[in-house]
Amino acid sequence: MKIALIGFGTVGQGLAQILRDQAAQLRAQYGFSAEIVAVATRSRGSLVHPAGLNPAALLDAIRAGSLDAYPDTPGLQRAWHSERIARDADADVLVEASPSDLDTGGPALDLCYAALTSGKHVVLANKGPVVVAYAELMAAAQAAGKRLLFEATVMAGTPSLRLALEALAGAEITRARGIINGTTNYILTQMETGMSFDDALAQAQALGYAEADPTADVDGWDAAGKARILSAALFGRTRRFEEMTVEGIRGLTQADIAHASEAGERWKLIAEVTRDAVTVRPVRVPLAHPLAGVSGGTNAITYTTALLGDVTLVGAGAGGVQTGFGLLGDLLALHRCGA
Amino acid sequence: MKIALIGFGTVGQGLAQILRDQAAQLRAQYGFSAEIVAVATRSRGSLVHPAGLNPAALLDAIRAGSLDAYPDTPGLQRAWHSERIARDADADVLVEASPSDLDTGGPALDLCYAALTSGKHVVLANKGPVVVAYAELMAAAQAAGKRLLFEATVMAGTPSLRLALEALAGAEITRARGIINGTTNYILTQMETGMSFDDALAQAQALGYAEADPTADVDGWDAAGKARILSAALFGRTRRFEEMTVEGIRGLTQADIAHASEAGERWKLIAEVTRDAVTVRPVRVPLAHPLAGVSGGTNAITYTTALLGDVTLVGAGAGGVQTGFGLLGDLLALHRCGA
Repeated sequence: MKIALIGFGTVGQGLAQILRDQAAQLRAQYGFSAEIVAVATRSRGSLVHPAGLNPAALLDAIRAGSLDAYPDTPGLQRAWHSERIARDADADVLVEASPSDLDTGGPALDLCYAALTSGKHVVLANKGPVVVAYAELMAAAQAAGKRLLFEATVMAGTPSLRLALEALAGAEITRARGIINGTTNYILTQMETGMSFDDALAQAQALGYAEADPTADVDGWDAAGKARILSAALFGRTRRFEEMTVEGIRGLTQADIAHASEAGERWKLIAEVTRDAVTVRPVRVPLAHPLAGVSGGTNAITYTTALLGDVTLVGAGAGGVQTGFGLLGDLLALHRCGA
Repeated sequence: MKIALIGFGTVGQGLAQILRDQAAQLRAQYGFSAEIVAVATRSRGSLVHPAGLNPAALLDAIRAGSLDAYPDTPGLQRAWHSERIARDADADVLVEASPSDLDTGGPALDLCYAALTSGKHVVLANKGPVVVAYAELMAAAQAAGKRLLFEATVMAGTPSLRLALEALAGAEITRARGIINGTTNYILTQMETGMSFDDALAQAQALGYAEADPTADVDGWDAAGKARILSAALFGRTRRFEEMTVEGIRGLTQADIAHASEAGERWKLIAEVTRDAVTVRPVRVPLAHPLAGVSGGTNAITYTTALLGDVTLVGAGAGGVQTGFGLLGDLLALHRCGA
């Protein structure tokens, strides 16, 4: 399988690391082998090689500061821009792992269309395109006879979408309810130890969980974007942010935390998705509920189903290799279906 | 898809109920339609109809006491024995949902071979054949170019095996650790409210959770059978009971429960499966661990993976419709692969 990779930050590097370290195992166990034939970054160079780039050398180069440090080899081409790679690279799959723009879909959205119309499957870690244009993208994929997969956009590589769409096929999911933003869950967990919101946020930033501008996490927009993806994927319902109730955790005080604790409850930022509505807001969850025990940066989703009752999945919600595994999961799914 | 069904107790009836109630939905959403062309019971009759039996009429008949009450229709045949159905029924899949015999595999084991060699896929809710002869059955399936699936044998229909084998493909599972017997978990949960072991067991029996002879559940053998299935499916390691450490919950006293509680811990009957060993025994789990919050008849498995860390799945561990959904999940998986 030939992969064109857009974006080579922690997630793209996570995928390259997996392909570097697990190649033999993946071939032996699943008959799967993949070559990265192109990599594009916004400001750190880009590389194309029809015979495949070496993942270890890619990682060495980017860690040295730029893909320009990748050694020259016969057939190597440099400085293709992303549009050209998405359209013209000789690849089976476009993997989009550049930063998400939840307002416009970012440049990634056009790259998705370019890839699909030029005969490539699309696998996304970037939430932007699915949040902004799910229905249009699925239609474009269907018209092209290609697939669009995006496991890595919700709960990193923890297979929340594959569980819902494949393993729970036929169980009739009526609701998803989850903790799908690790930063806010980390902050809430720290606040339970007595820390103030500001101190907990500063700690999350120091640990690299929260961005310098924490708005997207703290005010619920990251969770809301993922909830939009769940609404589209589970129920075929695309929603704009204006149609949703979104409330973050900025208003929660130590007193709120203490009151919940006295009542045997715990504040969690809960995204809830049904056929009819999508909400993100802090909720007091009884300690006995499976979501109450999900602490720190861990994520979890409970699917309520007609045939099976509640099914809860708990796992990593962030991390380069963890999210890179989400991309690998989609690539293996394409491989199982003969892509 | 034409189904021959062996065993028509709560699980077989659960599947028939799903096919009765969800037929239109399954056809619309997945293009899936299934006909039950044969049903066999040990002592309540059997029916064969090449054009398909009516699920509602099957359920009415069995609830009236016997399949003999199923109305006569042109083409209907009665009283085929199971062996003949497994071998000669014109079916795509044999579904085996008769009671498990973990020592010999029971009559079900021979039925599996008969079905595979006569060109049928096999889908099991019956643990016996996989516990006793996993490697031989997989070899027979491969030789026949057919598939052997058994999602319903562990955690009822909660997709514990599909999660591990498909959705976590490539993540490299190194350990499974779980609560996979609902009866003992129910008893332990009741004991935490102050009930004695004997009273909690009596209550579980009154509610239909525990059998009249509770040995298989209480002494850990049901969990051990499921752990053998996990060992085979995850690691390709088949094990005999004699090679495993199996300890039930019969020895736990109110004092043990109280001591754990004082230490912020909770007794759980934990099955642990690695490449090297399989154990089932009561373990004191810290309250903060995801498995500690799993109460009553609910089941859970934590898979430890190299790439993704811990992934925990929580859901139903018993029930007719819930286990019937496990069968449906396997049938849909066959359908996705073009069976």
